Amino acid sequence: MTKNNSPEIVIVGSMALDTVETPFGKVENALGGSASYAGLASGFFAKTGLVSIIGKDFPEKHLDFFKEHGIGIEGIEKSEKNTFHWEGKYGFDVNSAQTIKTELNSLLDFNPKLPEHYKNADFLFLGNFDPEKQLQVLFQMKKRPRLVVSDTMNFYISSKPEKVLEVVKASDIALMNDAEARQLFKTPNLVKAAKKILELDSEFAIIKKGEHGCLLFSKKSFFSAPGYPLENVVDPTGCGDSFAGALIGYLAKTKDLGEKNFRKAIITASTIASFNAEDFSLNRLSRLKKTEISKRISEFKKITKF
Amino acid sequence: MTKNNSPEIVIVGSMALDTVETPFGKVENALGGSASYAGLASGFFAKTGLVSIIGKDFPEKHLDFFKEHGIGIEGIEKSEKNTFHWEGKYGFDVNSAQTIKTELNSLLDFNPKLPEHYKNADFLFLGNFDPEKQLQVLFQMKKRPRLVVSDTMNFYISSKPEKVLEVVKASDIALMNDAEARQLFKTPNLVKAAKKILELDSEFAIIKKGEHGCLLFSKKSFFSAPGYPLENVVDPTGCGDSFAGALIGYLAKTKDLGEKNFRKAIITASTIASFNAEDFSLNRLSRLKKTEISKRISEFKKITKF
Repeated sequence: MTKNNSPEIVIVGSMALDTVETPFGKVENALGGSASYAGLASGFFAKTGLVSIIGKDFPEKHLDFFKEHGIGIEGIEKSEKNTFHWEGKYGFDVNSAQTIKTELNSLLDFNPKLPEHYKNADFLFLGNFDPEKQLQVLFQMKKRPRLVVSDTMNFYISSKPEKVLEVVKASDIALMNDAEARQLFKTPNLVKAAKKILELDSEFAIIKKGEHGCLLFSKKSFFSAPGYPLENVVDPTGCGDSFAGALIGYLAKTKDLGEKNFRKAIITASTIASFNAEDFSLNRLSRLKKTEISKRISEFKKITKF
Repeated sequence: MTKNNSPEIVIVGSMALDTVETPFGKVENALGGSASYAGLASGFFAKTGLVSIIGKDFPEKHLDFFKEHGIGIEGIEKSEKNTFHWEGKYGFDVNSAQTIKTELNSLLDFNPKLPEHYKNADFLFLGNFDPEKQLQVLFQMKKRPRLVVSDTMNFYISSKPEKVLEVVKASDIALMNDAEARQLFKTPNLVKAAKKILELDSEFAIIKKGEHGCLLFSKKSFFSAPGYPLENVVDPTGCGDSFAGALIGYLAKTKDLGEKNFRKAIITASTIASFNAEDFSLNRLSRLKKTEISKRISEFKKITKF
C-alpha cells in the first residue's frame, strides 16, 4: 500500500437508500446516509475515504459514483441484509422531517473497521451512529488525528447520554444542532450549552441552527454565520452531513486550525449545505461546480456586511 | 406651539402594567406596553412623542419617568378604566411567553388622537394594535411622514388579515417576526414571505427572528443580522418594540434611508433589544449608557467577520 493511496480524510457513517417526500416531489430508494453526504462534500476539498456498510440490494452504480468522484470505497463493507432504509416526509415547513419508517437492516451489523491505510489519516469524521462504536473507531487509529469531528442525534442523547459526552470529550469538534445541544446540556440557552461543550476539552463548539445558520464559540470569541437565503428548498436531507463533510474537507485542504480559518470553513460548509438542499438525494452536490461554490461564498460576504 | 416642541418621531401604541414571571424572577404591574418600550428606545436617538392611553390606576411616576427622559407625553390620554394589564410567564425557553391573563381595560377606549404639533412628524411608528386604528393614525397626519414603520401580531393576522395587508401596504417598513410572516403570507419560506412584502410597495422588508437575529430584504439585496449571544436572558418582553423604536430612532437621527444605513440601523436596533432582555420591564434601558451601546455595536462587527 503506497502512501499516495491513503486518504487525508476518513469519513465513518451510514450509507442508506432513502425514500423522501417533500412538497416538491418524491424519490424512492435514493442514495443517502451520513457517510454518503459527508464523503461527497469533503471530497470537493481533499482526498477522502469512506468507512460504512451497505446491504445486498445496494446498487453497484452508487459505488461507481463515489469512485468517479475520487472517493475511496475500500472501507465499505457489504452485509447479507438489505441496506439501511429511511423513509421520511417534509411538510411545507421543511425544517423538520417526519420519519415514516426506519429499517436499520445492514446498519445492525455495522462495526466500523478501518482499512490499514486509513489508520494514519489526519482528519476523521465520525458521523452520527452509536457513540460506543464511534469511540471504537478512534481506538483503531494508529495515531491521534489532527482533527476529529463528530456528530450525534437525539436518539443517542436520550439513550446513551454518558457515551455521547465521552465522544464530545474525545472529539475536537462535536457538531450539534440547537435542539440537540439544549437536550444534552439541559439548558434552553445556546451560549450556556456551548460553554459546556468548551469545558469538555474542546477548543471550539459549533451549534448548527438549520435555516438560521450556525454559531462558532471558542473560549475567547464568538462567530455567527448566517443561513443562506434559499427561496426554493427542495429537500434538506443530508444538509447537516454535507456541512460536516465540507467543514472537515476545507480544514484538511487549508491545514490551518486557527479561529480565523475556522470561520472560513464554516461559511464554506454552509455554502455546500445550502446547495445540497436544492435537490433530492446527492443530486445537487454531484453536479456542483467549483465556480458555483466560490460565487456563493462571496455572496455570504455581502449579506453580512454593515 | 413652537416648532421646537414638535417631536421628530411619533410612537403610537399601548401602555401597560405587566405582571411577568421568568425563571429569573417576577415583577408585578411593572411598566410595559409597545409604546413604552419603543418610545424609550427611540428617545435614545431623536426627539420622541408618545400617543397612547393609560388608566386611572397608572402611577404618575411612570409619566415622570418619560418626561425625565425627554419624551413627550402630551399624546397620552387617560381613561376612566384601569390600565391595560398583561400577565405572562416564560419557561426556561424564553423564546415564547405563555399568556396567563389579558385585561384590555383602557385599551378598549383607545382611539389614537394625535396632538396638533405631532401631525407633521417625519417619522411614525405604529405599534401593534388594531390595524383599522393604525390606518386612522396615518389619516390624521398633515403630510405623509418620510418613514412609516408598523408592527402587527398573530391576533390581528388571524382576525383581520385584509386590514393587516392594508397597513403593510401603507407602511414603508412592516415589521413581522418569522411566525407572523409565515402566517400572513401562508408560506413556511421566509424569502418568499419577504418577496410578498416587497410586492406590497415596500422598499424594504424586515423579518425578526428573536434570538436568531433579523433579516433585511430589498428588491436587490439581502442582509442577515445575527442575534447577540446573550448568556443571561432575564425577560424578553418588549424586545420587539425596543427593536422597532431604536430602528426608527436611528434612522431619524441619521436621516439616511439608503440600504447601507438601514443595515446599521438594524444592528443598532438589535443592540438595544439585546440590552432590553437583560432585565425586567424597562429597567435595563432606563439605565443604559451610550458608551455601552457603541461598545456592543462594535462587538456585532467582530462576531460576523470572516
